[in-house]
Amino acid sequence: MNKIKRNKIIIPLDVPSTKRKEYQNNYLKITHNSGRLMLFAGDQKIEHLNDDFYGKGIDDSDADPEHLFKIASQSKIGVFATQLGLISRYGMDYKNIPYLIKLNGKTNLVKKNQDDPVSKQFVEIEDIIFLKKHNRLNILGVGYTIYLGSEYEAEMLVEAAKIIHDAHQEALVVVLWVYPRGKAIKVEKDAHLIAGATGVASCLGADFVKVIYPDLKGKPSHQAIKEVIQSAGRTKVIFSGGKSVSSKEFLKRLNYQLEFGAMGSATGRNIHQKELKEAIKFCKAIYDLVVERKEIKQVLKKF
Amino acid sequence: MNKIKRNKIIIPLDVPSTKRKEYQNNYLKITHNSGRLMLFAGDQKIEHLNDDFYGKGIDDSDADPEHLFKIASQSKIGVFATQLGLISRYGMDYKNIPYLIKLNGKTNLVKKNQDDPVSKQFVEIEDIIFLKKHNRLNILGVGYTIYLGSEYEAEMLVEAAKIIHDAHQEALVVVLWVYPRGKAIKVEKDAHLIAGATGVASCLGADFVKVIYPDLKGKPSHQAIKEVIQSAGRTKVIFSGGKSVSSKEFLKRLNYQLEFGAMGSATGRNIHQKELKEAIKFCKAIYDLVVERKEIKQVLKKF
Amino acid sequence: MNKIKRNKIIIPLDVPSTKRKEYQNNYLKITHNSGRLMLFAGDQKIEHLNDDFYGKGIDDSDADPEHLFKIASQSKIGVFATQLGLISRYGMDYKNIPYLIKLNGKTNLVKKNQDDPVSKQFVEIEDIIFLKKHNRLNILGVGYTIYLGSEYEAEMLVEAAKIIHDAHQEALVVVLWVYPRGKAIKVEKDAHLIAGATGVASCLGADFVKVIYPDLKGKPSHQAIKEVIQSAGRTKVIFSGGKSVSSKEFLKRLNYQLEFGAMGSATGRNIHQKELKEAIKFCKAIYDLVVERKEIKQVLKKF
Amino acid sequence: MNKIKRNKIIIPLDVPSTKRKEYQNNYLKITHNSGRLMLFAGDQKIEHLNDDFYGKGIDDSDADPEHLFKIASQSKIGVFATQLGLISRYGMDYKNIPYLIKLNGKTNLVKKNQDDPVSKQFVEIEDIIFLKKHNRLNILGVGYTIYLGSEYEAEMLVEAAKIIHDAHQEALVVVLWVYPRGKAIKVEKDAHLIAGATGVASCLGADFVKVIYPDLKGKPSHQAIKEVIQSAGRTKVIFSGGKSVSSKEFLKRLNYQLEFGAMGSATGRNIHQKELKEAIKFCKAIYDLVVERKEIKQVLKKF
Amino acid sequence: MNKIKRNKIIIPLDVPSTKRKEYQNNYLKITHNSGRLMLFAGDQKIEHLNDDFYGKGIDDSDADPEHLFKIASQSKIGVFATQLGLISRYGMDYKNIPYLIKLNGKTNLVKKNQDDPVSKQFVEIEDIIFLKKHNRLNILGVGYTIYLGSEYEAEMLVEAAKIIHDAHQEALVVVLWVYPRGKAIKVEKDAHLIAGATGVASCLGADFVKVIYPDLKGKPSHQAIKEVIQSAGRTKVIFSGGKSVSSKEFLKRLNYQLEFGAMGSATGRNIHQKELKEAIKFCKAIYDLVVERKEIKQVLKKF
Repeated sequence: MNKIKRNKIIIPLDVPSTKRKEYQNNYLKITHNSGRLMLFAGDQKIEHLNDDFYGKGIDDSDADPEHLFKIASQSKIGVFATQLGLISRYGMDYKNIPYLIKLNGKTNLVKKNQDDPVSKQFVEIEDIIFLKKHNRLNILGVGYTIYLGSEYEAEMLVEAAKIIHDAHQEALVVVLWVYPRGKAIKVEKDAHLIAGATGVASCLGADFVKVIYPDLKGKPSHQAIKEVIQSAGRTKVIFSGGKSVSSKEFLKRLNYQLEFGAMGSATGRNIHQKELKEAIKFCKAIYDLVVERKEIKQVLKKF
Repeated sequence: MNKIKRNKIIIPLDVPSTKRKEYQNNYLKITHNSGRLMLFAGDQKIEHLNDDFYGKGIDDSDADPEHLFKIASQSKIGVFATQLGLISRYGMDYKNIPYLIKLNGKTNLVKKNQDDPVSKQFVEIEDIIFLKKHNRLNILGVGYTIYLGSEYEAEMLVEAAKIIHDAHQEALVVVLWVYPRGKAIKVEKDAHLIAGATGVASCLGADFVKVIYPDLKGKPSHQAIKEVIQSAGRTKVIFSGGKSVSSKEFLKRLNYQLEFGAMGSATGRNIHQKELKEAIKFCKAIYDLVVERKEIKQVLKKF
Repeated sequence: MNKIKRNKIIIPLDVPSTKRKEYQNNYLKITHNSGRLMLFAGDQKIEHLNDDFYGKGIDDSDADPEHLFKIASQSKIGVFATQLGLISRYGMDYKNIPYLIKLNGKTNLVKKNQDDPVSKQFVEIEDIIFLKKHNRLNILGVGYTIYLGSEYEAEMLVEAAKIIHDAHQEALVVVLWVYPRGKAIKVEKDAHLIAGATGVASCLGADFVKVIYPDLKGKPSHQAIKEVIQSAGRTKVIFSGGKSVSSKEFLKRLNYQLEFGAMGSATGRNIHQKELKEAIKFCKAIYDLVVERKEIKQVLKKF
Repeated sequence: MNKIKRNKIIIPLDVPSTKRKEYQNNYLKITHNSGRLMLFAGDQKIEHLNDDFYGKGIDDSDADPEHLFKIASQSKIGVFATQLGLISRYGMDYKNIPYLIKLNGKTNLVKKNQDDPVSKQFVEIEDIIFLKKHNRLNILGVGYTIYLGSEYEAEMLVEAAKIIHDAHQEALVVVLWVYPRGKAIKVEKDAHLIAGATGVASCLGADFVKVIYPDLKGKPSHQAIKEVIQSAGRTKVIFSGGKSVSSKEFLKRLNYQLEFGAMGSATGRNIHQKELKEAIKFCKAIYDLVVERKEIKQVLKKF
Repeated sequence: MNKIKRNKIIIPLDVPSTKRKEYQNNYLKITHNSGRLMLFAGDQKIEHLNDDFYGKGIDDSDADPEHLFKIASQSKIGVFATQLGLISRYGMDYKNIPYLIKLNGKTNLVKKNQDDPVSKQFVEIEDIIFLKKHNRLNILGVGYTIYLGSEYEAEMLVEAAKIIHDAHQEALVVVLWVYPRGKAIKVEKDAHLIAGATGVASCLGADFVKVIYPDLKGKPSHQAIKEVIQSAGRTKVIFSGGKSVSSKEFLKRLNYQLEFGAMGSATGRNIHQKELKEAIKFCKAIYDLVVERKEIKQVLKKF
């Protein structure tokens, strides 16, 4: 692994000079000095309700939210993304976990033929800072989802812009989830559209942007991934893992993304639907690829 | 009854350290040192208008709101949930009652085929604290309803998140009512859906979550109840009592819920539609089951 | 007349202890020590535009808003309810009038088949207190209308709850107008529905609630009126006068309401559509019934 | 001309005692000591876009907004009503003009069969006071438009009420434009409806109300105008000029309005569509009628 | 080039006297002492997503947002307009660029037959001032888009009015983008309609207004352009460049606009879709025309 140097980190200008060192610290911690982010996504209990945590093919242990904390605590990860409320109930027992607060959320109950998606900010940055300082929690960043192309897009763009400003004022790293979705969107996984989404994130000043992997028809071309990453500029792109696939297939696809410039990964179901030991092992594999940039062959050996 | 120890209570991290003892006190009082909550629901004068308080099969005394206060004052209960406005008119005569302020409410007049449900916060936490301190009222917690799957879900999720934060800052215990409802919801009592609802409550950081009992087709399986309770994690689940049924049937069902992990009960109509003595007797029975965990056979003897 | 004693007034708990005496004063003044409220409604210039003030069967003097102030100033009334703006233009010449500020209002132009009714708060309680103190106006209370069952119900419930809190903080008496109205409401004058409306007012903590008189099919049963009044608990019920009827008929109906527990009256058109002397005489008759509780026979003699 | 005496001006009670003299000054200036207001309306560049300023029958000079300032500066007028933004660009060269800030505005692009009209407040009263004091501008009042009967009526009623309160706190005179408009309104020029509109303005506490002249079918009856004016009470009524008509016809109609109680005039197109000299001459004629109350015959001689 | 003198600049009255010199400085810098503005538009990564930056006929370098900064840094331009978020990531390396912060933005995903356009303010003026001072960035102005004729027009008019006031308080120059758009607009490029748009900008007090060039049917008449410019009064008009055309054609059209009174240009795609050297060369040509007012023949020689 090539470590990035502290002085090579581009600190956004909305981070005050008194907080620049803290931002660098957060950035180095969240990426384990690699500049690449391995995000363990544990925010789907609102997004997908209990669909991702209970049922066929899902380990029984996943039915209990503490499973997420156990994995996050015992695995090599960059950051564990979940809601503030959940952390407020488990955080005292899992102080070592690096946290990223997911600031908004919605259920999947209203379908897009009924109404366009909208998701709003739950808590203020200052509430997070209070929680962090008061409990010495290891909170390194925040996340927020924008549904581009929704009729409520304007509300989410405004909230995102304000969050990025407020979070940077407090030295937090910001990850935007940007998903084109709504009646106006015919093909959510179109690479050119997703390149638009990463561009929007970069105009809003996000540190990282998480988008859907553009695999509409089989394996996307190098060019398609490149467009998506280039458009983000200095905002780094990570792809969401999507539905559960076989571990090998998952890791191969992830390596492919990293080779073409993705600066990390965001994985939820593919990790937490496994029982604890398997989940820890899988996190290790992802970490080895994303942070350590180990050879894919070497990583796959264990599967 | 096994008493819980003060130092075993998990205090949410958004309770400031200076308020932790007060939170523990409130928690112990509201559960009578048992960790289980017997909630007497008196908030339906807005939700159901006068339907629950007047008519066939309802005792005449229930027509007067003071009936609720008489029951709450003379019975063994965990907490009496009702609106601040009602308490402001009766509280001076019923200072011994343990109160939980229900913060929002809506009538049942607009049906879901006309518009999706929305219910908004009436008063601020600081108003409640003023009322509590100024009048030495025994206010231990607050409650709020979210209609998951409503087109207005986002507004309620945001209000709920902020209320939990503000209430914990003041050491109040928070109960969320979470009901999937709206045009998008086909089967409100589906266990998997309700497990989603308890999961949302846990992500928001509620202390207790009140959901509909998933009894779609006859008695639900142990597994169904277990899914609902597991998904809530450290947020405790209580089931709403639903329509009036025979006392015996009610108590048997409640015992069944408690056996499979429910951490309390929420009962309205089944209590207040009875005349005072009967209501007090019925509260005693519920209390014996929920708080004292007495044998169901022993409890049923009196009916 | 049986005077109520100062120490028998139930002071809502949201009135601060330093303002309790002032609240008692306002309550005694507004009810002339009787506990019963004779409200002269002069807020319809927004609600009904000029329909109530000009046309067949209406005295010419009613075309000028000052007519309302002349009546209120020269008659025996409990309180004169109208908008702050109107008072700000006439109050300097009518300082003796006991005022109640109607805080919201809407015109009757948009019909319910086009859109559900919504009416919003014009001015803040602090603005009213400023006006009151600065000009030594005799402002004793405030009023607000809620349209239950409207698609905008939530907005009005929230405003009402906040107004009651803020007004009580300033020792003002609060009258809620609560009318079920909107596409969802088939029969606005249904007694059971109106009992629901008075229950909502009591849950919000209003001092008085003004509802439509439930006279759907001829004279309503005692039971129907009793349900409406009981449901309100310690919130006192007054019925709106409705359309102009003959003076005798009006007074008989009012006496009937009072006999069954109504704690006052709210009258507009039946007063102000008369020329000044007639209006004063009619106010005297209402006052004799409501406040003095004189015999109906004695009161009717003059008509 | 009969001058009104300072001590005969009815000062609204929401003007603080420390500002009463300033309110009197503003009132006397805006009416040239006559109590009657000659308002030169220059706010239509938003309302009607360029339709009123360019095209057939309109003098070329009117294409440039400065034309309005030239007229206002060189003519006898009561007050020149326009947006703050325009004044901020020309006011330094036209410091002698008496200004009234029109606070809201909308274009005429969305027609009422598409959506009901809504127009919202651009700037705060405190911003106006800053601009006035900082630049020693001669700002005497503010104006605001309400579309009664629009589905957005509630929002505009609330803004209007707050503006009147805030403006009076700063001694400014308030003119409300009140127009019944929207899908619910069949006949905008109905006299009885317009009497409703002036009544609403009086309930909100406006100093002047500007309404459409009710000339539905030929010349309206004296009675119709009287209803409109009586309903306004102590709020004074001025009629908008409407479309361009011949100067003689315009002046005759204006005189007729004044004879029956109108307390001023509001004229836009009929003034500014003329070239400068003609416009000045026409302002003089209006001023002679409105403020000086000269004989109509004498005024018409010059046309 | 005729330089404008400092004391000839018309300073809007909402610029405080203590900031007038700074406003003059900003105005002179942004126009290079010419009074004419050459605006390089780099805000389309939100407006048009990646359509303008990747694909046929677009240089590969344009796929990376840094291309915009390279052009802006190495070319002669008046001001570079883009979002704050993008500047916060690149500004440390491009401190010499004169910036204008585009305050709102929307994507092009929702089409007007689905919903009318709305675009809202991302960040506050005070946030911009913080960023400017803290990092010594060369921020000279702000921009905001209004969609006239949209059903959401009112919201954007209000935001625009407040932004202009707040920005002038801080000595920033304001450019409004004003586009008639929405279901109500049949012909967006109609000259008379665009003259309405420039008139609205002038009523709001903008320094510059950017509108679509009214070239509906071939070359517009002098008269049409003159109407558009006259209507803006002291607000200066610049036309947006529109789709990519040949460089020669572009420059000829621009010169034509300038001859008839346009006070600058706004160009995006026609610049940044070229590779760096070509883009710099083209900026030079535009600068020569707009700021230096060189002869068109002389400028065209290089193409």
